[in-house]
Amino acid sequence: MYSIYCVGVGPGDPELLTVKASRIISDARQIAYFRKKNTLGRARAIINTLISNSAPFEYAMEYPVTNEVDFRSDKYKHSINRFYDDCANKLKKLLLNDDVVVISEGDPLFYGSFVHLFRLLKKDVNIEFVPGITAMSGAWNNSKLPIAMGDQPLTILMGIQSREELKSHLESSKNVVIMKVGTQLEKVKSVLEETDRLNEALVIEKATMPEQKIIPLREYTKSEAPYFSIILISEDHYE
Amino acid sequence: MYSIYCVGVGPGDPELLTVKASRIISDARQIAYFRKKNTLGRARAIINTLISNSAPFEYAMEYPVTNEVDFRSDKYKHSINRFYDDCANKLKKLLLNDDVVVISEGDPLFYGSFVHLFRLLKKDVNIEFVPGITAMSGAWNNSKLPIAMGDQPLTILMGIQSREELKSHLESSKNVVIMKVGTQLEKVKSVLEETDRLNEALVIEKATMPEQKIIPLREYTKSEAPYFSIILISEDHYE
Repeated sequence: MYSIYCVGVGPGDPELLTVKASRIISDARQIAYFRKKNTLGRARAIINTLISNSAPFEYAMEYPVTNEVDFRSDKYKHSINRFYDDCANKLKKLLLNDDVVVISEGDPLFYGSFVHLFRLLKKDVNIEFVPGITAMSGAWNNSKLPIAMGDQPLTILMGIQSREELKSHLESSKNVVIMKVGTQLEKVKSVLEETDRLNEALVIEKATMPEQKIIPLREYTKSEAPYFSIILISEDHYE
Repeated sequence: MYSIYCVGVGPGDPELLTVKASRIISDARQIAYFRKKNTLGRARAIINTLISNSAPFEYAMEYPVTNEVDFRSDKYKHSINRFYDDCANKLKKLLLNDDVVVISEGDPLFYGSFVHLFRLLKKDVNIEFVPGITAMSGAWNNSKLPIAMGDQPLTILMGIQSREELKSHLESSKNVVIMKVGTQLEKVKSVLEETDRLNEALVIEKATMPEQKIIPLREYTKSEAPYFSIILISEDHYE
């Protein structure tokens, strides 16, 4: 029986793949990845030069719905679950021929979408994971910001959390990463202002990519940020 | 003026260096790293084969004290601060000749010791950082444990924190990483029992190294764990 290798491809810079990920992807004869319709796919774009010679078979798992449908609705849930079932069945078919390498932005088990398929497949299929550099790690390294030291805790929050949740975590942690800021920017900014953390916060757009921007949040004038923008707040305040 | 490149070398498996880190270390003519006296150094051991041909000049920054002196004492603080000053001065001298590559276990800005030197040097020296795979990421990938999904927060704690701190964070977060468990194991275990999280917890010793062990905490009978052991607790409970 063949295996799935789910491999993290890091935050955007193709040089931030691990040596192991690079070897597995270069040797792959079948590659699979999620993508939005009418795009190449974010993970796929990162490995573009890596597979240009080997030209593996590619299975693009295209999301059936994106922003048109409310993701809390039954319609969305039904549609996305059928999509995951279809992907799992197709992957099983591909596994009759050879291993499949699934590429995943960042790290596969840190907020990675492949976990939905892992839950469906793990009883029947051997699945191995290869860690990847997370976008938050790319962000704090390129910002030269020590995100946590010594015995300080670190809390990772999501922009979509409620004001109350964000506030309570901000009050109990000095080092905080807020991911998927995007359309939640105004809410996040006002919570940071209330908890007196606005002056310590940095926004990073498109960490490690050529278009990367690093901006103190108090100077960030947009009302929305690109979807994958990250906010970093550290006790070791940047200067 | 030459620069310092502080490069993450990951958790232990030499294949988990990034392609970028691998390139910078292979090309380095001067390399520096922290280590305990009478050891090769944990970061240095990871890159052993990588520099066997290039044979760069090596500056081992040997900690003056380890476990003999209480790290909260004035004696320890005085000694460690003088050590960091000496290291910073020596690095400045090396920078008169060429760039220096400082290698750092895991990720350099995620609980990394080089930050002490970064604070002393950053006004005078250009310092660039290259992210690395963290030990926790190696641990959850090798455990096949999705550490966080969707809009779930993730909290990273240190074994050395007080019972009260650990308890309060465990009550507000379902996904938790506890690092540097080591001698704190009994305390951590009893807090997890009190907060009813013991059955969900995994211990990982020496993540990604040949001696790696992954054990459910409830079956872990040692009273201490190796220093860098990690506990993982996820809403997406392992099976």
